[in-house]
Order: sequence, then C-alpha cells, then structure tokens
Amino acid sequence: MKRSTDKAVTHVLNNHKGGKQLQTVWDRYEAQQPQCGFGELGVCCRHCMQGPCRIDPFGEGPDRGICGATADTIVARGLARAIAGGTASHSGHALHVAHVFKKILAGKAPDYAIQDEVKLKAVAVRSGIDVEGRPVIDVARELLDKALSEFGDKGEPLTWAASTLPLGRIKVCSELGIVPTSIDGTIAEVMHRTTYGVDADPINILLGALKCAVADYTACHIATDLSDILFGTPQPVVSKANLGVLREEAVNIALHGHNPLLSDIIAQVASEPKLIAEAKIAGATEGLNVVGICCTGNEVLMRHGIPLATSSISQEVAIMTGVLDAMVVDYQCIMPAIATVAECFHTKVITTMAIAKMPGAEHMAFNEENAVECARAIVRQGIERFTYRNPDKVCIPQESSTAIAGFSAEAIIGALAKVNADDPLKPLIDNIVAGNIRGICLFAGCNTVKVPQDHNYVEMVKKLLAENVLILATGCASSAYARHGFMTSEATKEYAGEGLTAVLTAIGEAAGLGGPLPPVLHMGSCVDNPRAVDVAVAVANKLGVDLSQLPVVASAPEAVTEKAVAIGTWAVVGGFPTHLAWYRQCWAVSW
Amino acid sequence: MKRSTDKAVTHVLNNHKGGKQLQTVWDRYEAQQPQCGFGELGVCCRHCMQGPCRIDPFGEGPDRGICGATADTIVARGLARAIAGGTASHSGHALHVAHVFKKILAGKAPDYAIQDEVKLKAVAVRSGIDVEGRPVIDVARELLDKALSEFGDKGEPLTWAASTLPLGRIKVCSELGIVPTSIDGTIAEVMHRTTYGVDADPINILLGALKCAVADYTACHIATDLSDILFGTPQPVVSKANLGVLREEAVNIALHGHNPLLSDIIAQVASEPKLIAEAKIAGATEGLNVVGICCTGNEVLMRHGIPLATSSISQEVAIMTGVLDAMVVDYQCIMPAIATVAECFHTKVITTMAIAKMPGAEHMAFNEENAVECARAIVRQGIERFTYRNPDKVCIPQESSTAIAGFSAEAIIGALAKVNADDPLKPLIDNIVAGNIRGICLFAGCNTVKVPQDHNYVEMVKKLLAENVLILATGCASSAYARHGFMTSEATKEYAGEGLTAVLTAIGEAAGLGGPLPPVLHMGSCVDNPRAVDVAVAVANKLGVDLSQLPVVASAPEAVTEKAVAIGTWAVVGGFPTHLAWYRQCWAVSW
Repeated sequence: MKRSTDKAVTHVLNNHKGGKQLQTVWDRYEAQQPQCGFGELGVCCRHCMQGPCRIDPFGEGPDRGICGATADTIVARGLARAIAGGTASHSGHALHVAHVFKKILAGKAPDYAIQDEVKLKAVAVRSGIDVEGRPVIDVARELLDKALSEFGDKGEPLTWAASTLPLGRIKVCSELGIVPTSIDGTIAEVMHRTTYGVDADPINILLGALKCAVADYTACHIATDLSDILFGTPQPVVSKANLGVLREEAVNIALHGHNPLLSDIIAQVASEPKLIAEAKIAGATEGLNVVGICCTGNEVLMRHGIPLATSSISQEVAIMTGVLDAMVVDYQCIMPAIATVAECFHTKVITTMAIAKMPGAEHMAFNEENAVECARAIVRQGIERFTYRNPDKVCIPQESSTAIAGFSAEAIIGALAKVNADDPLKPLIDNIVAGNIRGICLFAGCNTVKVPQDHNYVEMVKKLLAENVLILATGCASSAYARHGFMTSEATKEYAGEGLTAVLTAIGEAAGLGGPLPPVLHMGSCVDNPRAVDVAVAVANKLGVDLSQLPVVASAPEAVTEKAVAIGTWAVVGGFPTHLAWYRQCWAVSW
Repeated sequence: MKRSTDKAVTHVLNNHKGGKQLQTVWDRYEAQQPQCGFGELGVCCRHCMQGPCRIDPFGEGPDRGICGATADTIVARGLARAIAGGTASHSGHALHVAHVFKKILAGKAPDYAIQDEVKLKAVAVRSGIDVEGRPVIDVARELLDKALSEFGDKGEPLTWAASTLPLGRIKVCSELGIVPTSIDGTIAEVMHRTTYGVDADPINILLGALKCAVADYTACHIATDLSDILFGTPQPVVSKANLGVLREEAVNIALHGHNPLLSDIIAQVASEPKLIAEAKIAGATEGLNVVGICCTGNEVLMRHGIPLATSSISQEVAIMTGVLDAMVVDYQCIMPAIATVAECFHTKVITTMAIAKMPGAEHMAFNEENAVECARAIVRQGIERFTYRNPDKVCIPQESSTAIAGFSAEAIIGALAKVNADDPLKPLIDNIVAGNIRGICLFAGCNTVKVPQDHNYVEMVKKLLAENVLILATGCASSAYARHGFMTSEATKEYAGEGLTAVLTAIGEAAGLGGPLPPVLHMGSCVDNPRAVDVAVAVANKLGVDLSQLPVVASAPEAVTEKAVAIGTWAVVGGFPTHLAWYRQCWAVSW
C-alpha cells in the first residue's frame, strides 16, 4: 500500500540511510495484519477479569458477554471509555496550563507572563467576571480560580461550556441530562458506569459519554483561552511547512507534542545570541533551527511562525532525515518508536514531562519555575548532538510549502472587520446567504496509518473547495493542508470555486494581503477546535439561530486518537453533522 | 466443570423451573470458550484507532504495537486503566454519600440523619478538625467540605490517606512520587498517560497506577467513614446467610449492589406495619422479607442484621428460586443478565440509579430528597409482583448458615477491650508475639465464574485457620465465609488451630458471646477494606513499626472487578504481601 501522499515523507522513506533493519509505523502496521476483527468492531470487552468476552458479529457464536452484556452495551462502553481517555488528555493539558498560570500569579514562574491582557479581559467578561477598573492581576486571579473550579466537584454547569455555547445547545444538553458539573468528575463517572455491573443500557452509557464530551469541549476551551492569555492570541503569520525546513548547516531541534508551556520557551531561547553562537562554535554555520511536529508544532507556528516539519504519523521520518539533532517531546501522540528509530541515527530523544517517559529516551524534567534554564539545557543537548551527526546518513528532502497560519477566531473576525468594521460578521453571513459560500467545513484530527498519509484530507478538500465550501483546519488536518500547499493565496486561485474565490479575494485585499485569503484557514492545534466553535457561535447568535441550523460540518477523516473521538462527539453535541472515519470504518452522526 | 461449592446455589441450578432456555453466567462462560489468549494476557491494545494491536507472546509475531509500544507498555497501560476504573467506582460511591450528606446538612434530605456522632467526631479529630465545644452540625460541615475537596484539584496530599496511613508508608509513597492530590484528578491522569502517545515507560505507568490506587484507598475510606456517620458504625450482629433465607410465604425483596443510601432506607421502611399489612393483604402471610445480595447485602447485614441471600456471581440464582418478587439494584456488580433471567419468572428487576440502567428492567429513579417515599414505592412494586408468583416455579433450597457479622474496626477493638480495657490492642499483639496467632489474612474481592464458586476461599481458609492465622473478610469473600458457616463460634472449634482457638475463646467469652469469636471476622462490604487497614495501622503505630513489618497479608483469590485490582494494588502500596488470583492467572506482589 502507498504509505504517504506527502512527497517529502515519501522521499525520506525511500532514500533514508538508517539501514534495512529500521522499522517505521507502516512496517509495524503491516506486521499487525490481520488485525483482530472483534477489536476493530469494538465487540470485545476486558472490563472485568471474567473476560475477555467477545460477541460474534455473524450471529453464530455468543450474543452476550459473560455478564450478559450485548454487543450494543460493549460497544457503548468502549466508546465511552475512549471519550474519557480523550477528555482526560485535554483535562491534563488545560490543568497543566492553569497550574503554571497559578505559579505565575504567585510569582513562582518568572519566565512566564500574561502576554495578552485583551484576551484575559474578554474571557473574564464572558465568564461573568467584573473587569471595570480592576487591576489585571485581580481579574486574572478570579478567572484562574474559576478555571480551576471546573475540574472538581463544582456542583453547577461548567462556566466555559455555559458561557460559550448558544442557548439552543444548552437547552438540548439540559433536556438530555448531559450538562457536566466537573471535568475530571465526569471522566470518573464514565469510568464508573462502564466498569463491571454498572450501566448496561447502551443509550444511557452513550448519554454519559456525550456529557463527558461536553467536559472535553470545556477543557479544550480552557486550554486555548489560558494559552492565549499567557502566550498571545495568534494572528496571521507566514511560515513554511514540510521536511524541507530542516537545514543541513543548522542544529535542528524538533518540538513535538501538544502543550506550548515548554515549546514556547524553547522557541524564545533559540533566538538568544549566546545559544546561536554556541551552535556555530559546534560547527553549525547556520546556527539554530527550531521546527515543530504535531500540535506543539502548530502552537509555535501559530504564535511565532516556527516552521512545521511534519505531522504525527511521520514523526519518525523527521529523525530519518539524519539531520535532526534533538527531538524534544511533551505529551500526546508521541510514538515510543522514535527512541528505537533514533538508535539508527545521532538524534537525541528528550522527554520532559513526568507523566510521559519512554524507554531509550533521555528524560530532562521540565520545571516551569525555572523554565528558561531548562529550555537552554535542552537546546544545548541538541547542539551537543549535532557534533555526532553522520554526513553519510543525511537525507533532507527539498519539499516545503509556504503556509499562512494563525487564524484564531479573533484573527478571522479581525480580517472580516477590514471589510466591514462596524459589523464584521456581515460579509461572511451575506456571502453564505447569497450562496457564494455554500458552507463551512472544519477538518480536524490526525493522520492514520490506515490510509496513505493525507489522502483523505487532500481528496475531500479539493471537492469541497470547488463547491465553494470554506475550510477551517486544526491539528494534523492543518498540518496536512500546510504541507500540501493549501494555506496560500495561490491555492484559493487553484482550487476554490468562483464564489468562494471572490469572497476570499475581497477579504484578503481589504486585509492588505495583496491577494486572496488561503482557502483553508489554520485555526491551531487539536486542542484549539473550540476556536472554530467560537466563530460559528458568533454567527449563530447574530442570526438568532442554533448551531445546528448553520451550514457548518466537521470531519476527522484520518482520526487516530481518543482525543479525536472526544472532539468528534462534542461536535455532534454542538449540532454539527460530523464525520469520523478511517480505513474500513466510518461513523457519521448528527442530531 | 463444577459450577459452585455452595449447596444452595447448586440445588437451584440443578432444580430450577425456569426452563431449558434459561442461561446463567456459567452457560455464558462456556459459550465464550476459548477466550482470547491475547486478551487474557493483556497484550492487546485498543487505545487508539490505528489498532487493535497485539503482541505475540511466543515471540514469533509482532513484538511491538503500531506506535512502538512493547508488551510491557501495553500490559501496564491496561492494568493502569483497570485501576482507574476501580478507583472511579469507589469515587462515585463516596461522592454519592458525600452529596447526600451535603443535602442533609442543607435540610434537603429529611429522611437521613447523622446517626453516629461518636464516629463523626473521631473522623473529624483524625482529620485535624477542632471539635471541642462546637455544635455537631459545624463539625459535620467542616468535615464534609474536607471530604468534598479530596475529589478536586486539592493541591496537597489527600487528608484521608495522609491521616490514616502510618508515617513509614507515607514516606515510601512520597519517595516514589505516588502521593495523589485529587481522587478524580488522579483517575483522569491515568487515563491521560495511557492514551495514545503519552506514557510509554511501563515502570512510570505503573507508578501512576499506584498513585491512583492510593486515591482509591482514599475514596473507599471516605465512603466507609461517611456511611458510618450517617447509618451507624457496625457492631456485632447475628443473622443468616444463603438462599434458604428466602421465604415462600413472604414477599421477598432483594437489595443488590453497593451503596447503603437506598438499601438502608428500604431496610427501614420494610418494618413499617402498613407495608407489612399490604403484603399480607396481597397473600403473603409472613409479610415482607428483605434480603441482601452482594455488597449492598453486606451493608444492611452489618448494620441491621438483614439476612444475606447470596453473592454477586450467583445473583441470577436468587431469581431462579421462583420466590424473589423484586430485585432492587443500585450499582456495581449488577449483571445485565438478571433482566433476561427474570423474564422466565415473575421477578421485577428495578434499577434506581441514573448512571446504572439496564434493558428489560424497570427504572424507578431514587431521589434522596424524598427517600422514604421512593423506598415505599419500590417495596410496593415487590408486593404487587408477589401476586404474579407461579407456585409451580418455586425452588427454595434449605441451606442457610448462621453468620455473626458487624466487625468494624471499632467493634474489633471493642471486643478486645473486654479483655483489656486499658490497652485493647495488647491481647492481640501479645498473642501474635507469643505465636498463638501466626498472622492475619484479609480475604477480599469477588466470586469468579472461572473457578467453582467459593472453592478458593474455602480451601485456603481451612489451611490458614489450621495454621492459626486469623481471618478478616470483606465483600464477596465475607459472603462466601458467611454462607459456608465460617462466621460462627462452631467454626472456630472446627477449623482453628489450638493457639487461635484459645485467643478467640478468651475474647468471645470476655465479650459475653458464651463461646469463641468466629475465626473469620466479617468487616463489611468491599468498599470497607480500609476497616482492616485501620486495625493494622493501630497495631503498627502502637508497635512503632511500618505496616510492611506486620504479619498481615491480603488475598482476593476469586477476583473479578476492576475495583478488586485497585484494592489489591493499594494493599501492595500499604506494604501487605498481596495475592490476586483467578483461573489460569495469578499475581503475587509485595515490596
């Protein structure tokens, strides 16, 4: 099977110098064939030690598990736990940022600061906090306390959900009994109701899972808001994407994972003249070259224009170029295989988080109270490893595309305001009503090994753009479109239908781009999906309709992670027709 | 394979009148054979949608998952999630009691009250709350706030763990970095670190799982303490156990599940003359007969002497007697199969909790704000179903044993105080030192379909008693020993070695029993396992040693649930050599 539609990735897979013994995710996928059919269908259960049980999908074997659970119950249990896993990931991400925020306010994290007071005030006002005439620090404290209270037994609907969703959605959630009152408590509730002998009603289990998905939305929104407050709300920025951004004459350090807490500091110290000088002394005539992978990559691309090397599925391939001196990871979507692949090269894999270690990697604990010093020590590891580079193993592909990123909700509305300063949403709404924009599709999620990398993204987007559908993208979807050149003015001219081209051109020229906006707007990392919801909610509220009445859909056509399941599920709760698909399996749901 | 060593269960299995189509857990177990070997070993993973992956345990197939995870990583992930599922169950149980406690203090749950002020004050003092001269209600409020804060982002070690474990254990936990600061937050952390691409270091994952197990211990202890405060701390009580407690001429209502919140109220209303009269009018000349199943059964046995009908694995068999008019369930260890089995009889299966519904059962939402009325309505359902009873389907076995239960830590120390009022622990310690008691074994956990019911319990206890090992029991272990006659003075004479018999006789006679204490002390339901820890900690603190230096071990020889895995894991953290075993698999760990 073809492994990737990305030419840079394909080039390295075909020409790397890691040796024949080197295995990648595609080799391991082949070795796993045939995969267990029960597992693929989700009809096996190991939630108690009387199992494992499995239901015969052909009706010839058992139709019940040992406890009496049917296939429906077993599938619902498994899906609910996947959503709990996804929600837990976003909870951990958000709580991590909140804890650092708390340290900042306590004066214990001097290398961080509140960088975006406008966002702080906007989030505070939305959350019902009085800001008039109050010192920023007081507003920040109250907002942080409110954020932290969302994770425990709050006893009332979560502020971040209740204050960002339109009334119609809140009504639907209330009627279904799926309004969470605690992020972590709702995760625990799903784990409880899916253990042996608790909830056996598949509909009831799924309602619990939907409630958990609303908690996931809340956690994502908190993570995005607090990150913007600490590191700045993204604004349009031009950069490059794909493995061609690696440089033979520079110390290449890849930041991989999800959270900006570490990566933003590394991005900052990498421009320090002292460290650049050290890199040059080590022999890297072009100094330091920090690049991004996966969603940490999206975070630093959006805020600092750091080039994006590649996405999650091809993380090993970045090492296989032979010029990656250090891969620095935080958490989520980090394949443990990178430590094994790195053994064939000089690359040092550095883990940094207490909850995410890896056999074969070096662990350098990242301490936010001493962030800059930790970041410098990590960069110096990369410089040191550069001296071990083997020129015979270098295999840098040429490919990289220009990518305009940084389209936060604020940035999109800012661009629209250039067309109509008094009523920024009017141009968007008018063009939807007039049929120039037939709809909006949010692409989110991962790259899966089960289809050639990016295949589903690229094929779907070409058709949708020709049909004048505006595309928003996050996570590895945004990486795919950045690497394939869809985040340029030229892509609008090449792929967008007539109506959409006219709209994007008008906005782009009003905004001073000298050409159309890209047809795919990079809205951030996967935790940033609420940015797209914020835009949709603004439109819905202006029109006085519910989200489900807007021509907005969502798709994760190469979904991998439990996070994608959680996000896709809250997209359903949000009223968006939603598509989660991968090889041989497809869910498409809405209400 | 022999299905049960319980004669009553065996009698009903062989003679029931439910028809040949009726299937029980043992039939479904047979239908599942052969079970998946990968699943049994825990070497398959479905934590992302690139899977399912599986490792070939014979070394001939893949040795890595698609992400690169090894068998060690995959097994650690699965075990950690099982512990998270168990912890979530106890968290939900404890939080449920805490929420009702909160309603009581707010005057919103008039059918409940603080029944044990002595326990309230004892727990408050232990938790660092000032009680001198303060109104009970103030102490209760402060204690409740402290309890509720354990579930959220507390930011400091959990009070219930820090104040009940000896310093030696706290030191071990601190050094290993496994001190939780939130019950639900730690569950979420395990779910996060075990999702795709987070923690890949098996040791690190297991440390996270141990931390979660400490959170489980905390949740269990909170549940037990708050239940004692609301419903009374158990004291020795004489009752009966086994299916022979069902009565042909009474309306038989079984309470099944885990939480006393509902069952204690039903036990209370079942003695109301009006309801008894209604039962008699319906034709039940002996009125109402409330019996217990599983750990809800243990709760009402310990506090009210309600007879115990059977344990979790044989829950269907209670229905197959043909005389069970209603089975009322809350949550945990409720097989969805009971609704199917009930179709062959007149029994009404009633679910009561929003998080635990079941296809085919009637849901009667239990509202604690109106508890007595809800309980009466449930009892009336039983009375109504009695009129549908088919005499041709009756199959009540004769067997039932006397069972002395109610050995809370307070009750054990109370009994010892009868021997030495000034220094209650001295007789126990002296007899251990003198070799009359060679050790203490806590039996806990479930009945598994994978061995003949109770087989492991009965065979092990006979050997241990002969070796003068004192036995504590909780959960379905206590049910097994109650049904098999081990909770009587006679059992001491029959099974205990000479030294142990002498000690139990001295205590029993001093306590006015007119004979020896039983050799197996019923310490409560499975959530009550911390009661055993409390006794051990009292001994350890008196001796100035760590728990790991005591001759105390724990065993769950027929473990089924994720809760058992969590409890077994915190027993390991507690320093007790611990045994968790079932058919073909066995873990035995300590440090």
